Amino acid sequence: MSAPLQSLLVILGEIADLQKAAALLEWDEQVYMPPGGAATHGQMVGTVRKLAHELFVTDEVGRLLDLLKGEMAGADPDSDTARLVTVTRRDYDKARRVPADFVAEQARVLSASQQAWIEAKIANDFQRFRPHLERFIELKRRYITFFPPAAHPYDTLLDEFEPGTTTADVQAIFATLRPRQVQLIRELGARPQIEDTFLHVPYDEDRLWSFSREVVTAMGFDWTRGRQDRSAHPFATGIGSDDVRITSRHTPNEPLSLIFGSVHEAGHALYEQGLNPAFARHSLGAATSLGIHESQSRLWENLVCRSRAFWQHFYPALQERFPEQLRDVSLDRFYRAINRVRPSLIRVEADEATYNLHVMLRVELESALVEGRLEVRDLPDAWRAAMQDYLGLTPDTDSHGVLQDIHWSIGAFGYFATYTLGNLISAQLWNAFGAAHPARDVDIARGDFSALRDWLRGTVHEPGRKFLPKEVVQRATGGGLDAEPYLQYLEEKYRAVYGA
Amino acid sequence: MSAPLQSLLVILGEIADLQKAAALLEWDEQVYMPPGGAATHGQMVGTVRKLAHELFVTDEVGRLLDLLKGEMAGADPDSDTARLVTVTRRDYDKARRVPADFVAEQARVLSASQQAWIEAKIANDFQRFRPHLERFIELKRRYITFFPPAAHPYDTLLDEFEPGTTTADVQAIFATLRPRQVQLIRELGARPQIEDTFLHVPYDEDRLWSFSREVVTAMGFDWTRGRQDRSAHPFATGIGSDDVRITSRHTPNEPLSLIFGSVHEAGHALYEQGLNPAFARHSLGAATSLGIHESQSRLWENLVCRSRAFWQHFYPALQERFPEQLRDVSLDRFYRAINRVRPSLIRVEADEATYNLHVMLRVELESALVEGRLEVRDLPDAWRAAMQDYLGLTPDTDSHGVLQDIHWSIGAFGYFATYTLGNLISAQLWNAFGAAHPARDVDIARGDFSALRDWLRGTVHEPGRKFLPKEVVQRATGGGLDAEPYLQYLEEKYRAVYGA
Repeated sequence: MSAPLQSLLVILGEIADLQKAAALLEWDEQVYMPPGGAATHGQMVGTVRKLAHELFVTDEVGRLLDLLKGEMAGADPDSDTARLVTVTRRDYDKARRVPADFVAEQARVLSASQQAWIEAKIANDFQRFRPHLERFIELKRRYITFFPPAAHPYDTLLDEFEPGTTTADVQAIFATLRPRQVQLIRELGARPQIEDTFLHVPYDEDRLWSFSREVVTAMGFDWTRGRQDRSAHPFATGIGSDDVRITSRHTPNEPLSLIFGSVHEAGHALYEQGLNPAFARHSLGAATSLGIHESQSRLWENLVCRSRAFWQHFYPALQERFPEQLRDVSLDRFYRAINRVRPSLIRVEADEATYNLHVMLRVELESALVEGRLEVRDLPDAWRAAMQDYLGLTPDTDSHGVLQDIHWSIGAFGYFATYTLGNLISAQLWNAFGAAHPARDVDIARGDFSALRDWLRGTVHEPGRKFLPKEVVQRATGGGLDAEPYLQYLEEKYRAVYGA
Repeated sequence: MSAPLQSLLVILGEIADLQKAAALLEWDEQVYMPPGGAATHGQMVGTVRKLAHELFVTDEVGRLLDLLKGEMAGADPDSDTARLVTVTRRDYDKARRVPADFVAEQARVLSASQQAWIEAKIANDFQRFRPHLERFIELKRRYITFFPPAAHPYDTLLDEFEPGTTTADVQAIFATLRPRQVQLIRELGARPQIEDTFLHVPYDEDRLWSFSREVVTAMGFDWTRGRQDRSAHPFATGIGSDDVRITSRHTPNEPLSLIFGSVHEAGHALYEQGLNPAFARHSLGAATSLGIHESQSRLWENLVCRSRAFWQHFYPALQERFPEQLRDVSLDRFYRAINRVRPSLIRVEADEATYNLHVMLRVELESALVEGRLEVRDLPDAWRAAMQDYLGLTPDTDSHGVLQDIHWSIGAFGYFATYTLGNLISAQLWNAFGAAHPARDVDIARGDFSALRDWLRGTVHEPGRKFLPKEVVQRATGGGLDAEPYLQYLEEKYRAVYGA
């Protein structure tokens, strides 16, 4: 190993340690921190992240990267080391473009904004949040100016979460999805509705947890390198691939949400547990994007866990645990009930068939805000109009409308599109795996997920950030981002479920 | 505030954030970390502590301290700022004396040593641990050479844990304690033994936890700024005074150990929760020494929770929870049973009357090792001889003898004495509080600990590191370190318990 590479790895190793420490501190905040600790924790995490940033943006790192560029001149551009240098250079150039005082200002705005959003949501008063959102829009516009002009100003924001994917990519996908998803929902809405009252009654919480744990274990979650806890908002976090933690919650009278939520987070967790250990302390040892991350959680949650094959295996065990509620419910009735489509106001409660419409609405509004085509004061009206247009619903309150998501209050503009990208990619991967492994559905119906997990590990998990999201899709499927597999999956599945 | 002070506080603030982050990471390792995460966590904590050290030992910090020394020339030497400068200077000079390569070597030795100790203890094979212990003794001797010569080489080690207290202080105390404690134990051993079989039967664990929680709440532990979890080895840790965590464990057939253990850790926790918030992010915002820390835990565990007054209030509630075990046990029988004296091989299981003898044995052996009066190869024999001399027992195995404690395996030489200092100081504080507050025992018998807690807060907790341990004792009691109050307490209490 060359001396510059060795020196760079020492620095990147310490940065990785700090990022992992920050991830654990943030996990703790959501899971076990006593309420009085919030201010102390905020300062701790702030300092840890700041030092990680400072260790990275030094002239020394730039000098090492310059030397390594020379060294890599003749090397295979797809070798681990060449990719490490490329990815680190990309991170470095981005990190150097954003001035320290801007980062500090953004942190101040964030702190006030998040509190204001919580209060505004509780009080159902958009005006309380409005000035903070306006400041964030200004900040985002300023942020964009630090980077070279792109085809679309929103590109710069999107690139934070989905590197290499552009607004044009997203718009093309949305143009394909929108009419067919709207059409499908109308079609299903005209059919006789599915009876699912047995899914909205009390279920014993402890039994649901133990059932969820069984499913997550069957997926291949490694409990010696991970754990599951309760939290108000479910999430997954990797403190390195040897310590990956998921959280879940039980909602009374919504028994299935604990199961689907656990499977969703375990899908994220398998990605983190499957990262290449050789990349653990440098730039390649993390998920390549939020879209690819979401493709993993959605694949397990929807393609696997909402399939008939899955429940062929698991339904008897569930029935046995909940005889009172499920004794008289056939597999077929159960399968249709868990796939009931019901347009609703709240994104996080949306079913598969309507979810993307929630996302499109947000992406369109936030890109309009960033471009100045929409003013923050007109946002609640614009939200209501779009909800009516896409889902045929109008929110009764702003709390159930424009104030429902945390993302804008923490300045995460450009994030929403990754949810829909994840959905599409999950179907593309599913088809590619099915082509490579014709026994796919037979395996699932036996509760055997080993081939799927191994295929995802090799294709998606292990490379981490070595490949850009589009490269991951290309390598796994032989093609580019494509909305068609997901649309076909939706149309075929839901027309069957609704007997249409 | 002067510019140098402002600059220093920014640096100390970031260092405090890193130290708190490391404390939380270490808590997590003991409480929730999945086993596979050990190596990743070790690296994280190592990097966080290393960066904290590097931020501190810069020339810039030295320059700021020089400027501040000048500024403080005319100031009250007991003002917060003057003390901050003094304490920070002391820390700085110590930190600068130890070369970075020594710290790194010590970390390497530690990592191998701890593993070897675990294996040696399990295999009951001292030889496996011996070379590691020899390396640590060498390292400790080298460490001592970085500091100015002291009256006794062991002084330098002791100063790490009990600043300002010397080997001569400790030897004088031991010389007073040893004969009277040995004599007391012989006396009690000759009396009819106490019947305590009802304390060595199964008790429902959940009820023990809820009872412990009630006691800890009555002590004044603030649950909005703290929490309690299970762990293999009970401990307390402060991640700042707004997030203080204790851990406890239940030992089957030893019901009281959960209660006394919780009270012990809560005693430590009250110290951490009571630190002055104004010191939170600089050098004064921590406990002044391990001895003073232990004085808090031992005061609550022994002076309070093993007193008759305490159980006058709490025993009916315990009896009500455990009617099967305690219905026919009077308060007097219960009180005598929890104070049964029984010389044993294991320090952490030792009762009040024998505990200090375990400590003396260790301090004498480790100072002999450091001075070269004892070779590591002769240590197991020396241990056996001393145990026979002090407690009339000979360990059946090295696992129950020289290998029982973790301290030497992590290089914590100089630590043990603080346990005994804590015992002595707890009795000194108890007497001082009794003099200031004559209703002390009446309050305890009513379960009212508010006056005690407030007095400890003002006297011990709030100042943190502003005062050295000896100053804390002086300010609280008007005198110096004194073994007499603890000896009188032991002799009076245990002669009464044993009807001697």
